Amino acid sequence: MLDFQTGIQSELHLIPLSYQQACIMKNMDNIHFIGVAGGSGSGKSTVARNVLEAVGAEDVTYIQQDSYYKDLSHLPADVRMKLNFDHPDAFDNTLFFEHLQAIKNNLPAEKPLYDFKTFARIGFEKIEPRKVILVEGILVLGYQEIRDMLGIKIFVDTDSDLRIIRRIRRDVLERGRSLEYVLSQYLETVRPMHQQFIEPTKRFADIIIPEGGNNLVAMDMLITKIQALLSH
Amino acid sequence: MLDFQTGIQSELHLIPLSYQQACIMKNMDNIHFIGVAGGSGSGKSTVARNVLEAVGAEDVTYIQQDSYYKDLSHLPADVRMKLNFDHPDAFDNTLFFEHLQAIKNNLPAEKPLYDFKTFARIGFEKIEPRKVILVEGILVLGYQEIRDMLGIKIFVDTDSDLRIIRRIRRDVLERGRSLEYVLSQYLETVRPMHQQFIEPTKRFADIIIPEGGNNLVAMDMLITKIQALLSH
Repeated sequence: MLDFQTGIQSELHLIPLSYQQACIMKNMDNIHFIGVAGGSGSGKSTVARNVLEAVGAEDVTYIQQDSYYKDLSHLPADVRMKLNFDHPDAFDNTLFFEHLQAIKNNLPAEKPLYDFKTFARIGFEKIEPRKVILVEGILVLGYQEIRDMLGIKIFVDTDSDLRIIRRIRRDVLERGRSLEYVLSQYLETVRPMHQQFIEPTKRFADIIIPEGGNNLVAMDMLITKIQALLSH
Repeated sequence: MLDFQTGIQSELHLIPLSYQQACIMKNMDNIHFIGVAGGSGSGKSTVARNVLEAVGAEDVTYIQQDSYYKDLSHLPADVRMKLNFDHPDAFDNTLFFEHLQAIKNNLPAEKPLYDFKTFARIGFEKIEPRKVILVEGILVLGYQEIRDMLGIKIFVDTDSDLRIIRRIRRDVLERGRSLEYVLSQYLETVRPMHQQFIEPTKRFADIIIPEGGNNLVAMDMLITKIQALLSH
């Protein structure tokens, strides 16, 4: 249903238009979808959390692609751990897109709760449509159907050494994984999938934010834009 | 006086701060300097022109590094044409920085007028400080002293094939140069200087705008931020 695509240049940027012509064309819906993509450890969830903190949770629905990892509870623990979590097929993309469509149609959805320690879906949580929908995840810019929903497409671009350091800290300290597992997983799947699937979607971004949530000037610009959208 | 530097990561992005802590630290001067860098043909001057069009020329002082090319009128025409115009030394950086400092201190300056057909300085034009100062040029992010002035540092990132096409169109059609000259100049100086000096300054950017002025979402975000600065 939802095909992962890379390498197709957004046509929009190639059409020269005056800024004023362009403003007339802009979609001014009441629900504003903002996509935040980027590699593992790039700082994309910090971008999202900063937006939530500054704009206020009452106006923002935060949807992480990570919540839509396929449930692996039927597999033995050692098999689960060896799977590729950075390939588009690791996600329940049909459910992810259904929920985004529901929210777009002003309907609630039952977002899965995913446990990163056991790689299992452990329940559901109701999400409601709000004025701003933050859609965050490694591959959210890889789907034409999702890109078409997004009013602002952001790619958080952070050097790979900084990303692996953040990933080590998160996976070892927060998710209780062994250092050797984290490093092997990085080399075997995270890194090649990043190069094959995540990095090419940078092409679809409207803006690229270096360093993610710690980039205060970019955060300020994004938050100012969201606040302007909310004040209209 | 003004040393070109590359490869030093801005420290700011590496310090994790909450968004609210960061806002307290932000400089809220009355004059807002915005830097727009990027390779030749990247679309950076279109970014600047869109800002001028949307914000209004009465609030914006537009300073192009190109105006500060060294005057080559004392050299024979065939020698002028063979020089390297993409090296930091091609610019009168001392004058450029003096003028930026004057504007920062709320003083006018006599900006040079540069003729690209003859590679000569053909006069001066008075520039006045306004609320927003757009500083645009291939190397404007390469100087610590200039970066320290800039509240927003933008790098316009456009694929090299699109950039050479724009450059061919501009230099052949607008500046009356031969196609062979444009292509040889590109291979001999523009391309290597881009890789050595321009591309590394992307590191200093707060935001990276793919495709420059034709990127309507990024333009809208930048203009919204500038309008918010002006309304305070």
